[in-house]
Amino acid sequence: MDYARRQSAMQPQFEKLRLDALLVTHLPNVRYLCGFTGSAGVLSLSAGRPVFFTDGRYAAQAREEVAGARVVISKGSPLLAAAQFAQKSKLRSMGIEAAHMTVASRAALRRALAGQPRLRDVGPVVEELRMIKDAGEIALIREAVNLGARLLDTALQVIRPGVAEAEVAAELEYAARRAGAEAMSFETIVAAGPRSAMPHGVASAALIPRRGFVILDFGVILHGYCSDMTRTVHVGKISAGDRSMYNAVREAQQAAVDAVRAGVACGQVDRAARNALRRAGLARYFTHSTGHGVGLEIHEPPRLGRGQAERLRPGMVVTVEPGVYLPDRGGVRIEDMLLVTGGDCEVLTPAPKDLIEL
Amino acid sequence: MDYARRQSAMQPQFEKLRLDALLVTHLPNVRYLCGFTGSAGVLSLSAGRPVFFTDGRYAAQAREEVAGARVVISKGSPLLAAAQFAQKSKLRSMGIEAAHMTVASRAALRRALAGQPRLRDVGPVVEELRMIKDAGEIALIREAVNLGARLLDTALQVIRPGVAEAEVAAELEYAARRAGAEAMSFETIVAAGPRSAMPHGVASAALIPRRGFVILDFGVILHGYCSDMTRTVHVGKISAGDRSMYNAVREAQQAAVDAVRAGVACGQVDRAARNALRRAGLARYFTHSTGHGVGLEIHEPPRLGRGQAERLRPGMVVTVEPGVYLPDRGGVRIEDMLLVTGGDCEVLTPAPKDLIEL
Repeated sequence: MDYARRQSAMQPQFEKLRLDALLVTHLPNVRYLCGFTGSAGVLSLSAGRPVFFTDGRYAAQAREEVAGARVVISKGSPLLAAAQFAQKSKLRSMGIEAAHMTVASRAALRRALAGQPRLRDVGPVVEELRMIKDAGEIALIREAVNLGARLLDTALQVIRPGVAEAEVAAELEYAARRAGAEAMSFETIVAAGPRSAMPHGVASAALIPRRGFVILDFGVILHGYCSDMTRTVHVGKISAGDRSMYNAVREAQQAAVDAVRAGVACGQVDRAARNALRRAGLARYFTHSTGHGVGLEIHEPPRLGRGQAERLRPGMVVTVEPGVYLPDRGGVRIEDMLLVTGGDCEVLTPAPKDLIEL
Repeated sequence: MDYARRQSAMQPQFEKLRLDALLVTHLPNVRYLCGFTGSAGVLSLSAGRPVFFTDGRYAAQAREEVAGARVVISKGSPLLAAAQFAQKSKLRSMGIEAAHMTVASRAALRRALAGQPRLRDVGPVVEELRMIKDAGEIALIREAVNLGARLLDTALQVIRPGVAEAEVAAELEYAARRAGAEAMSFETIVAAGPRSAMPHGVASAALIPRRGFVILDFGVILHGYCSDMTRTVHVGKISAGDRSMYNAVREAQQAAVDAVRAGVACGQVDRAARNALRRAGLARYFTHSTGHGVGLEIHEPPRLGRGQAERLRPGMVVTVEPGVYLPDRGGVRIEDMLLVTGGDCEVLTPAPKDLIEL
């Protein structure tokens, strides 16, 4: 990964925000900017050479991973070590990541600094950079998406009436690990029968009924990058009503995919899905946003939701995942990951979307 | 779970902190107080009936799970819905959980409130309650610990030279899921050979060498409660030096276990481990704390670290996990979970701790 390019891409922010330094504490941002993958570390960015602070547990790992920054191993908290460094460096102003630092951490940092440098709350400046994936990232995301998509076959082999949702998740997660995934990118959702009406029905001990939808929403982390996909299958004979519900979501998802192109506002993609569902009389059962960015985090900017003005740009990777949920009856959601290109977009997820009846 | 008791145990805080209400946003705290297990929800506690806010995705789940609170399904963010409610209820002061709320969320909340009620940063008051586990929790923790401990056998069957660390993790996690675990409680650590010198060496593609230590640190989540255990095994013929290093950690762990009893300061337990390692000349390679509380979260108060004055009390559940890490050579860590009782303590983790040579 080109950490040098990313670090220099942050440089204009110092002038723009009138800051001497930015304290990067959100771990995915730390990883993005210097490569550290551990669970405790702080990166201080300024006009000079970046400095990375971690604790003794990560001494070896930091020396192995951190690129383009001096590594400091702190006795106590890396945050307070960074504060001491800022004082000694005579910085006058230091930005903190307001969307990630807790109120208590900010207060502790402020006490440690005792007025110098002054703290300034800064918005998601690293996330804005991260929204546009570079070639190295896109290659890794493709790998993660392809690994993730192959897991669908595993799930389809296991799903049948009487099998616990959790067993489906177990087989799917085992296959993911065997294929090299570091972890799942979020709690695997296997929601069968009436439970498919819960958009976030994580796999439970409930058994797959003789008849009904099964929503499978899952993803892996591979080389740090997340995948995310949803397919809904049907067990047993499907009713005409359920089939038309499936087809309505299928069409809404396609309408949203068709709307994804560089220059289009994110809210426009959401509207495309909602309009399609409105024509089917199902819009009021679509209770979440249409999609979100994916990368080092499973949810990251941009958000493809109602009225979002952010415009799609080449290099963005987003999900498109409309769904419909009828309480006590069942639900359908279909989700792909897409790469916004110079022209329109490339659907990264390779799995078919026509209804699978088991 | 006795949510009514927990909710009333919070009542004295309002007078003590001079607050009309407390906004509980940290999800493990929300779960502890009202039973909600989803990923978006806010609980407003006051002298009156608690009110729980979530979004449309969780409408069905909230009605099923939430105990002792009115459920409000918000169109937008549950946090802002809670703010509107606080305004309408004419609250004058509302506490927020400073250790968990981000600076940006606090600012958004403050804007939404426009001065009424006033916000007050509050410390970990719910966590203080959570430190002392009730009988229902202890029963669930026992189940999680026992399930977790059985996974060691699975790992031992897989570990041999040439097998990837990640494969060991895959088998262990699969067995966990099959046995009913909802998830692992943290990223599984399988650190073999020189990688065992990394206290947080998560399972990688690295192969287990012909000779060396393998640290296995893993835990499950079962019914929401976490387990956490570490064992270190040795592959191939062990050297005299490595054997005495193992035994030193074994003795330090026992010394710390022996120090755990109601009334003892947490720092005293840490000191017991450190003193034992000092006698073996290894104290400077023990680069982390001796332990931490475990419950709904894998790390929660109290912390068994240097100088910690918090005193152990009956009902606390903590880990004891000293370790020694020699750079480029290898490391050893041994970890149990303990329940502080009326007298001394009960070691919950049933697995043996004598050196296993494979």
